Amino acid sequence: MSELLPNFVAGRWVPGTGAGTALFDPVTGDELARVDATGLDLPAAFAFARDTGGAALRALSYGQRAELLARIGAVLQAHRDAYYAISLANSGTVKNDTAVDVDGAIYTLGQYAKWGAALGERRFLLDGDAVRLGKEPVFHSQHVQVPTEGLALFINAFNFPAWGLWEKAAPALLSGVPVVVKPATATAWLTQRMVKDVVDAGILPPGALSIVCGSSAGLLEQLQPFDVLSFTGSAETAALIRRHAAVAERSVRVNIEADSLNSALLLPGAAPGSEAFELLVKEVAREMTVKSGQKCTAIRRVLVPADVYGAVAEAVSARLANTTVGNPRNGTVRMGALVSRAQKAAVQEGLAQLKTQAEVLHDGARLALVDADPERSCCVAPTLLGTRDADGAHLVHDTEVFGPVATLVACRDLPHALALARRGQGSLVASVYGSQAGELARTALALAASHGRVHVVSPEVAAAHSGHGNVMPQSLHGGPGRAGGGEELGGLRALNFYHRRAAIQAGSAVLGELG
Amino acid sequence: MSELLPNFVAGRWVPGTGAGTALFDPVTGDELARVDATGLDLPAAFAFARDTGGAALRALSYGQRAELLARIGAVLQAHRDAYYAISLANSGTVKNDTAVDVDGAIYTLGQYAKWGAALGERRFLLDGDAVRLGKEPVFHSQHVQVPTEGLALFINAFNFPAWGLWEKAAPALLSGVPVVVKPATATAWLTQRMVKDVVDAGILPPGALSIVCGSSAGLLEQLQPFDVLSFTGSAETAALIRRHAAVAERSVRVNIEADSLNSALLLPGAAPGSEAFELLVKEVAREMTVKSGQKCTAIRRVLVPADVYGAVAEAVSARLANTTVGNPRNGTVRMGALVSRAQKAAVQEGLAQLKTQAEVLHDGARLALVDADPERSCCVAPTLLGTRDADGAHLVHDTEVFGPVATLVACRDLPHALALARRGQGSLVASVYGSQAGELARTALALAASHGRVHVVSPEVAAAHSGHGNVMPQSLHGGPGRAGGGEELGGLRALNFYHRRAAIQAGSAVLGELG
Repeated sequence: MSELLPNFVAGRWVPGTGAGTALFDPVTGDELARVDATGLDLPAAFAFARDTGGAALRALSYGQRAELLARIGAVLQAHRDAYYAISLANSGTVKNDTAVDVDGAIYTLGQYAKWGAALGERRFLLDGDAVRLGKEPVFHSQHVQVPTEGLALFINAFNFPAWGLWEKAAPALLSGVPVVVKPATATAWLTQRMVKDVVDAGILPPGALSIVCGSSAGLLEQLQPFDVLSFTGSAETAALIRRHAAVAERSVRVNIEADSLNSALLLPGAAPGSEAFELLVKEVAREMTVKSGQKCTAIRRVLVPADVYGAVAEAVSARLANTTVGNPRNGTVRMGALVSRAQKAAVQEGLAQLKTQAEVLHDGARLALVDADPERSCCVAPTLLGTRDADGAHLVHDTEVFGPVATLVACRDLPHALALARRGQGSLVASVYGSQAGELARTALALAASHGRVHVVSPEVAAAHSGHGNVMPQSLHGGPGRAGGGEELGGLRALNFYHRRAAIQAGSAVLGELG
Repeated sequence: MSELLPNFVAGRWVPGTGAGTALFDPVTGDELARVDATGLDLPAAFAFARDTGGAALRALSYGQRAELLARIGAVLQAHRDAYYAISLANSGTVKNDTAVDVDGAIYTLGQYAKWGAALGERRFLLDGDAVRLGKEPVFHSQHVQVPTEGLALFINAFNFPAWGLWEKAAPALLSGVPVVVKPATATAWLTQRMVKDVVDAGILPPGALSIVCGSSAGLLEQLQPFDVLSFTGSAETAALIRRHAAVAERSVRVNIEADSLNSALLLPGAAPGSEAFELLVKEVAREMTVKSGQKCTAIRRVLVPADVYGAVAEAVSARLANTTVGNPRNGTVRMGALVSRAQKAAVQEGLAQLKTQAEVLHDGARLALVDADPERSCCVAPTLLGTRDADGAHLVHDTEVFGPVATLVACRDLPHALALARRGQGSLVASVYGSQAGELARTALALAASHGRVHVVSPEVAAAHSGHGNVMPQSLHGGPGRAGGGEELGGLRALNFYHRRAAIQAGSAVLGELG
């Protein structure tokens, strides 16, 4: 049997007492490790995090906590090769895809370390200026943000075992809030190893960081009113979480990032061969294949004017035809595997559904896999679908296939494309491709109400733009409606979730003593 | 039978088709009016508000919408006498208590009109500055706030039929978001009349303001992903709302203001007769009796050093002994009725529960009611309870009796008092009484994590402070945990709830065109 990865709770490494759930190599099918949370004393674990960890973190200033983040980043950097090896084995990713996760985590930690250092020796944040209450300048209202006196539970997704932890933990720890992370089982190894390295380095105070691997059973039951819960995953599980007593009855603050039918919009007038046209084509092909399309921000719908539908189909297909798929250990392979058999089955099922309303414009499965067994491995080649019946093909706007799949959609005009983007019922990101600044700005504003991020690509940013699907810590990550309604990152805006805002009403002398 | 008050939906006045639910005078028991929502075409009503009302409001600038608020305020001012008459009849309030509701509404509208005017001719808000993405200053991230493209549904409480509507509607309408209000049935008359006056004045575009009176059945089912829902009421109903498919599955953004065991803390060292001591005593007595204690912000727990427990009990009781209770039509009456028989029964039941763990320090029921039948009327005299077993008397920290009832609690020291305040598990407001600025500031910060507002009273603000329970539109209203976790008011912070934040990532030329 493979190694059983222990949990880290209440300041100790504790293996589960059950048989455990196996983690596999999605290319070879080999068993790699096991995780198990059976028998943990969760009430004690949560109390230790909340009380011991929380008190120790809150005793530090933002600047001191920022220094901890910098040291965590250095530890992760030192062990980077091990993380690439684990990601290769457990996620089946090529190096470029591992980088999005591992280097993305280290970059995000570094940014929060920098931003936190600038907050200096404070232990709470002023929120706006004091305003006078009443006619005389005697009594005032000053809003503050103080760290919530609870813990942060993260229930994370399988696609970003590294970044998914640290993009949340960086703002939480900087805020002075202890973290308990429950990684998705399929890829929990990398998360567990990173926590182990940080624990071994002795950077954080006891209780500041805990990890529970395996089942999430019993975790939500531990949550108390001042705790917060951040979930990334399916809309179905999100609904269960929202209905849980912790959230429904105890008002535990919850942040959810769920399904998203992200769009890329080509503005009218971008003829085949124009710069805007080529930028769209390149980005669509890239988004479909990076991490085998297992990004919640990936382009799922490509909304283009009807008169270039055929030309876009041809150009994207030509790029996809160059994408070799298979075992990431082979240097010629550009795209690795999906993370698990369950994901492979879900993608195949979703693809079959979409095909009932869309035509196949490119079928990568016609090319053989490189060094990978089509049956045994979880490799799935990219597929570009398409429809000229934008309004009738409702599955295209409702069904997120979490793999290398996108659908090209022919639109009548820009208002039609905007209405279709909105039919995603709230998405994480839309990208817009064009060359006229005014039209791009108006389109971006029109998309802003239904998207957490709008990514505008025009010729002058061709070499500089950060990519449709890349989540930059400077920008908000989250979206309304179907996307879950959450807000992560966005620079120091991320700290809001881990703080409580309060108005302090007092005389000038008292406000002057707040410090 | 009394008049059936019609609903205003889809731009028309529509009476319910059922028999209706009666509204009563809580002093005399007379039936005043009826409300009913049977037979309304709610899908059409919500679609009209969302599409017609939303589009019309969003076409206006913040400055233009602020002008609408100013005109609404003027209309309400013109009909103020009618509102006082309705409040007297339907809420059983003396003039000073009516003022908190009616004049509070007009003041709040006026403040948002002023703040909105300063936002000028914009139609969206910039959120922070643009930040560079990448090494070269080519590609940037600019956050914006844009009005959510849905409607705002308010499910309101019985205690503030006037202010409860306008403290929410002012920021919603200013944000460009249409409003549907469902007032609590017992006191719906005043809300309905105010909406009628504003509709008759022709101020708002069609669909911007709707009212449904009576049952809330079917309202939540209408909500779609970009709508928002604001609820004020019991924690029990709040849990039902959070579990509803609209919230759990469709990610409708929800703001909840629920139960709250607000505290007043007297700092150690304030001897009987000292200014801080007297300020506490005065505020406790006032908070217990204003609106017969039917304020979600009212002081429920009075946390004082054990050595002054007896002195505080005596001083508060002496003030309460002067509070004449009865028919508000009699000029000698200082405190009117509770709003309904249901509330009277709930207060009596809660009081009986608290008495199992607390002693009675003052029983106002020993005085006869003025011009009111003890059986028929909903008048309830103030009761001050007390306990020297702060830790054991758990009901005191868990049970909100929504009437003229507070419990005096003897504390060992300041850390004990802070821990007890926190045992409310999240409250709307705590007030602190003392004379040393540094100690007051530290105490305020310690309370900030578990309270939405901390109100600090020291001798120099004795004449100027705005009152523990008065909700000033400049300050946040809401609290974590048991209080529901919501955020209302707080100046322009209130607009956040009605906007969606998005990051626009683009080159300088595009950002320059945002306007």
